[in-house]
Amino acid sequence: MSNIFHHLRVHQIFGANTNVGKTILTTALVRASGAKGKEVLYLKPVSTGPLQDADDYHVNRYTVEYARYTDAECLYRYDEPVSPHLALKMKDATSEPPSDETFVNSVANRIRGFAKETNGPAHMYVETAGGVHSPTLSGTSQADAYRPLFLPTVLIGDSQLGGISTTISAYESMVLRGYNIDAVMLFRDEYYRNWEYLKPYFEERGIRLEALPHPPPKLANLADDFISTDEYYESLVSAEEGGVGSIVDHLDVLHKKRLEELESMPRRGLESIWWPFVQHGLVKGEKDVTTIDSAYSDFFSIANQRSLSNPSSQNSVVEPQFDGSASWWTQTFGHAHPSLTMAAARASGRYGHVMFPQAVHLPALKLAERLIQNGPGKGWASRAFFSDNGSTGMEVAIKMALRAYALRHGQDLKDGEKKHLGILGLKGSYHGDTIGVMDACEEGVYSCEWHEAKGYWFDPPTVSIKDGKVSINVPGSLASFSSDKDIPAPSLSWVYEVEERINTPLARAYAQYITRSLEALKQKGAPPLAALVLEPLVMGAGGMLFVDPLFQRVLVDTVRGRRSGSSSKWSGLPVIFDEVFIGLNRVGMESAGPLLGVYPDISVNAKVLTGGLLPLAITLASKSIYEAFVTDSKADALLHGHSYTAHPVGCEVANETLAMIDKLTLSDDWIAAQASWVKEDGQKSSVWSLWDPNFVTEISKLPQVAGVMTLGAVLSIKVKDEAGGYTSHSAQTLLQSLKDASQTGGSLSTAPGGAPFGIHYRTLGDVAYFITSLNTKAGVVRSIEDRIWKSLTSST
Amino acid sequence: MSNIFHHLRVHQIFGANTNVGKTILTTALVRASGAKGKEVLYLKPVSTGPLQDADDYHVNRYTVEYARYTDAECLYRYDEPVSPHLALKMKDATSEPPSDETFVNSVANRIRGFAKETNGPAHMYVETAGGVHSPTLSGTSQADAYRPLFLPTVLIGDSQLGGISTTISAYESMVLRGYNIDAVMLFRDEYYRNWEYLKPYFEERGIRLEALPHPPPKLANLADDFISTDEYYESLVSAEEGGVGSIVDHLDVLHKKRLEELESMPRRGLESIWWPFVQHGLVKGEKDVTTIDSAYSDFFSIANQRSLSNPSSQNSVVEPQFDGSASWWTQTFGHAHPSLTMAAARASGRYGHVMFPQAVHLPALKLAERLIQNGPGKGWASRAFFSDNGSTGMEVAIKMALRAYALRHGQDLKDGEKKHLGILGLKGSYHGDTIGVMDACEEGVYSCEWHEAKGYWFDPPTVSIKDGKVSINVPGSLASFSSDKDIPAPSLSWVYEVEERINTPLARAYAQYITRSLEALKQKGAPPLAALVLEPLVMGAGGMLFVDPLFQRVLVDTVRGRRSGSSSKWSGLPVIFDEVFIGLNRVGMESAGPLLGVYPDISVNAKVLTGGLLPLAITLASKSIYEAFVTDSKADALLHGHSYTAHPVGCEVANETLAMIDKLTLSDDWIAAQASWVKEDGQKSSVWSLWDPNFVTEISKLPQVAGVMTLGAVLSIKVKDEAGGYTSHSAQTLLQSLKDASQTGGSLSTAPGGAPFGIHYRTLGDVAYFITSLNTKAGVVRSIEDRIWKSLTSST
Repeated sequence: MSNIFHHLRVHQIFGANTNVGKTILTTALVRASGAKGKEVLYLKPVSTGPLQDADDYHVNRYTVEYARYTDAECLYRYDEPVSPHLALKMKDATSEPPSDETFVNSVANRIRGFAKETNGPAHMYVETAGGVHSPTLSGTSQADAYRPLFLPTVLIGDSQLGGISTTISAYESMVLRGYNIDAVMLFRDEYYRNWEYLKPYFEERGIRLEALPHPPPKLANLADDFISTDEYYESLVSAEEGGVGSIVDHLDVLHKKRLEELESMPRRGLESIWWPFVQHGLVKGEKDVTTIDSAYSDFFSIANQRSLSNPSSQNSVVEPQFDGSASWWTQTFGHAHPSLTMAAARASGRYGHVMFPQAVHLPALKLAERLIQNGPGKGWASRAFFSDNGSTGMEVAIKMALRAYALRHGQDLKDGEKKHLGILGLKGSYHGDTIGVMDACEEGVYSCEWHEAKGYWFDPPTVSIKDGKVSINVPGSLASFSSDKDIPAPSLSWVYEVEERINTPLARAYAQYITRSLEALKQKGAPPLAALVLEPLVMGAGGMLFVDPLFQRVLVDTVRGRRSGSSSKWSGLPVIFDEVFIGLNRVGMESAGPLLGVYPDISVNAKVLTGGLLPLAITLASKSIYEAFVTDSKADALLHGHSYTAHPVGCEVANETLAMIDKLTLSDDWIAAQASWVKEDGQKSSVWSLWDPNFVTEISKLPQVAGVMTLGAVLSIKVKDEAGGYTSHSAQTLLQSLKDASQTGGSLSTAPGGAPFGIHYRTLGDVAYFITSLNTKAGVVRSIEDRIWKSLTSST
Repeated sequence: MSNIFHHLRVHQIFGANTNVGKTILTTALVRASGAKGKEVLYLKPVSTGPLQDADDYHVNRYTVEYARYTDAECLYRYDEPVSPHLALKMKDATSEPPSDETFVNSVANRIRGFAKETNGPAHMYVETAGGVHSPTLSGTSQADAYRPLFLPTVLIGDSQLGGISTTISAYESMVLRGYNIDAVMLFRDEYYRNWEYLKPYFEERGIRLEALPHPPPKLANLADDFISTDEYYESLVSAEEGGVGSIVDHLDVLHKKRLEELESMPRRGLESIWWPFVQHGLVKGEKDVTTIDSAYSDFFSIANQRSLSNPSSQNSVVEPQFDGSASWWTQTFGHAHPSLTMAAARASGRYGHVMFPQAVHLPALKLAERLIQNGPGKGWASRAFFSDNGSTGMEVAIKMALRAYALRHGQDLKDGEKKHLGILGLKGSYHGDTIGVMDACEEGVYSCEWHEAKGYWFDPPTVSIKDGKVSINVPGSLASFSSDKDIPAPSLSWVYEVEERINTPLARAYAQYITRSLEALKQKGAPPLAALVLEPLVMGAGGMLFVDPLFQRVLVDTVRGRRSGSSSKWSGLPVIFDEVFIGLNRVGMESAGPLLGVYPDISVNAKVLTGGLLPLAITLASKSIYEAFVTDSKADALLHGHSYTAHPVGCEVANETLAMIDKLTLSDDWIAAQASWVKEDGQKSSVWSLWDPNFVTEISKLPQVAGVMTLGAVLSIKVKDEAGGYTSHSAQTLLQSLKDASQTGGSLSTAPGGAPFGIHYRTLGDVAYFITSLNTKAGVVRSIEDRIWKSLTSST
């Protein structure tokens, strides 16, 4: 993620198989680079087999005289000529292999070290061991283990019988992990002629392939052998056309193109792209544009514009940046997770996309069943309706609710009243950007010309931690209070034990307030309300408002007019839970129903649903909602559907995501995080967070912090600001230093590959929020906490 | 696509590499199947190498006595032990290899033949040659060439040094093509111990792996060698645990599960899924559900419920079905195209999804630039805004237009008038299902409770072919006519030569009608109109209405009040082209602008944009539209954005799609189709179709046909029906027989794999339409034409 330099071009060499001539062709590359006057470092991270046969020795022998500076190094060496993970065990059965992190960091350190040592122009070649998926010392496949470095790749093809297949498969395994293959090299075997087949194959894919002569036969006399081998290398390097020298030039051209591309991207973006939610008038130029070269785990690899624009800089022109909003709350296992790629590829290969009305395919069917029978729909949902994103999923939900209401109350509705049926909700609600769901919210900054707020929204009580204390802020509009009031809560856990609080005076006050408000509305002659729409627990886009769950529970109970759950038919108003943001474990639970003690009639999931890879949404509905659309007239059907409804790729990725979440929730990391959140009595808390409770408490005590809250992967920090609101920039300003990678402290966790990282975060006016993936490593979270702490305290 | 039988289980055997023991382990499978009393057929489609070493001979030798019936056959045999594509050339350099179609059909024919010969229970093993990507005779990779058969697979792993890598890469290449891997078998090499690594690897992926002993060393004495080898096989087959017998049982279990799954899917779908646009009350049961097992090229592979429910049927329980709506107008190169899978995988591996506001990544940047500089936006667009589907893309377009209009005319707008700004459009318009874009259309069957038609819609003149003649149907509402009138047109080409028609009396009549209507609206005090929104050329969902392009041209000119294109600023009203359906060559041109001679201020593309794989939409806007949002206040920005905005996977797939389309438009197939559509004078027509002009003419003469139209990949047939409209079933009834695969005639084109196919098609009330991919083979189109002809004529 931080291995592109002006003065140093680094390539890794992967083999289509073992024994395909990787070392020989790499030796030729090293020698050709040297012959062109470059300083060259050859690195063999892991070598197995006897010392005298070691690849780095070979490289040294035939290249050392041909360059200003060449060196061949090895980081891990084992004698047995087997796969590294076995060689390590054969050397010492009890030894623990280095972790992937240690391993890949040691390679990255050597790259960065060389970048500091050399003034360039320099080349570096990192030769892997065996084939692309040969295991590293830990057992992880090399293609996966090296991925954090994201080095451009030269693939050494297989010239033997069967080598067309192994070369193409190896190439595909690399592509699945996003690698750029800059060139393919292989021996020109005149019998099997694989190069003849592979050359057009790779050229069609924009990849240069060179077929090179086999090395000479090994001679018995060592001196003769050296001379003959040396002549062979000399002929490879000095060939006028199609030689290794031309490949080195080609790699240089691609390296230059890479630098130019990174440099041009912000300008080109500013010229052609219209960003969502961005005031282009406030984008002051290229420096305000994040150039994302790739992404891995929780990190973007972004251009460092200072290094990029300074050709004499010895730093990498790309660097890691923590994706602090989980890319708009979507990332679940980090970026570019191979399991999700494979799931997408599997469904793409089996189906592509297929028509969905009255059709059934396994990915969609399994997903529907999982969500209904054993997911957020468990116990109440009977049907899954597919669409493309949270906004469309909510449009569907609202269409369902309106129809169900209109059908039951049709005779009571006045002429034209259907068009103005109201939504009951909370102030601060947000359900997406399509115009219909915006009409389900109050007029606000997000609204467009056509916006017409249809409904009524309560000012909700919210939960917050300030000065180390948890409190419920009850707005003055709540009937029994004359002004806003902070009610202290014994603990965060207590707040979320809704069932325990259901008979408290506060619950009764909530109920009374709700009932009276609804009666008052009726008396004013407001259009009838047709649905209750809630974002349970947290209203995200509305400003990370953590609503008192008791209020939402009482609201549902009051609206339904019956103890919820006692009938399978919807009562009062259809209740919609918009769980697009909080659902599927983003806040530490699959769904809010069990915690609230009430279940919706309709709910929507998206975002985490597809693990952060691509768009898909699902609207779940109860039987009684579904039945409102079942007649013998086509016109009564839910006439809503998008072209790519239930696209198999999205469904398969969702199935994979849910299976991975199931494992994650039982993992040591989660259990440890849960254990750190305990109640006063030391018992397990009803809610928990991946963020450290002490950190949360401590920052809540800072004078510039107005309040903090956390649940699951979400941390929200409200900054004190006179102006406030969506258009405030205070949070952005206060935490500005987080973005700078060079601020990462020494002992703190680094990004994969060992480089210090900046932090990309989003604000909602005076609220800064941080959202991790569900599997972000505890060390990374601690490191971010430390950075936030420093940012907040240094700015006072 | 049609190779799952009750009485016969078929597996193909792929190797991770050549020389990994494929034939030996397949021999063991054949023998084990025989030992379990199955009839067994072993098929080696292509054999290379000397006859005495041929795999089928080996299999015969060691299995023939161990079963009621075993046979080993070979379809193509070559002496040279090299890759088949070379072996063929070495035998006779001038010989043409069989096409992939011929090749794969010959394999499929043998499978179907065996299914007829045997009463079962039977097993069949199809052993491929070399590795998964080893070329077939034509040079196509086996993994691709065999894909139409979609046979479950046993992968023979590589037990040698490097074999972990080759086995995993081969597996990944198979997954990319959607194959189900039922089992992995490899030799238990005690030195390299690949099985030890691979067993948990595959088990984690739900795949059984068995490691089996190496065969005995070859003995000099032939009789001894036979005995030793025979004993080896016997030991493999008779092993109590982990032997080949247990794998055969496992494959049987999976086969049974596959049948049960196919059988259960319709019921489970009926229980859990809520389909788009489907009246569930009219779905009479499982027979009305299409079970899609996989898809390839233009065909679904669907369950044949008759065969499935009849255990004694000797027919395949799945069969191909032509995707006659191109899966809601999305398919571009057919289903499961490996290039699109690779594009998706590449971006998933490099980025996953990344945050987009103020960020830039290559897939999005390239796509934006391609569309603006060298695509539908060429010459007028300056910005690309990303969203998820046509509906959201149109919501964005409307938000853009409303803002631009409101900004320019803000001082003229009365209080609250902004909320009711109107859209000018055509009756029959449809822009998606979200509530906002539905409000941009008339009230109709698609509307929901909240629907409020905002605007005015002209009844447009339409183009149609009836009785072999082209005519323009001008509605009576058009000022100069007292009733609907058919104006004969000299040819289809003539209709679309808009520039030639711009000074005709009809053009003047259109202009007059439009001007007068708009004036009348104003005088009535209708809310101001703020945008003109058109689906150029064809209104799809509205009933495949082919609008007279002259009318759309005149409408744009009139609304703009200037000769379009003479200023870069929008004038009159912002003009939106909804090209979601017709765009990117669905109707034979990239965009309608050049044909109409006018360009929009805003346009939307989706559907074909991603080649039919997954959702993505782009809204293009001119500079003057964009600038309406550029201020120094965040609140003025276009505050619209979806979580997965500009998701790299979608963008990369779109880039690949556009590159593939660029090639396709220059292909022989397209040139031939274009050449079949000529003007009266033999000159190239301005419009053309993949459908045959004579066929179109002939069906237009049928008495039950009210009119036909075609452009590009689209064929629309309006059936005579008293009732008419969206809820009519007449077209559905008339063409019912198309769905039946058994109706395919003998000499007609078949699906890949050689099986006859049914045709899945969609109707819009009294209109049946057929949409091919952009690359559907001419033979398949001819075959469908023939079937449509027969259906229409036999029903009279």
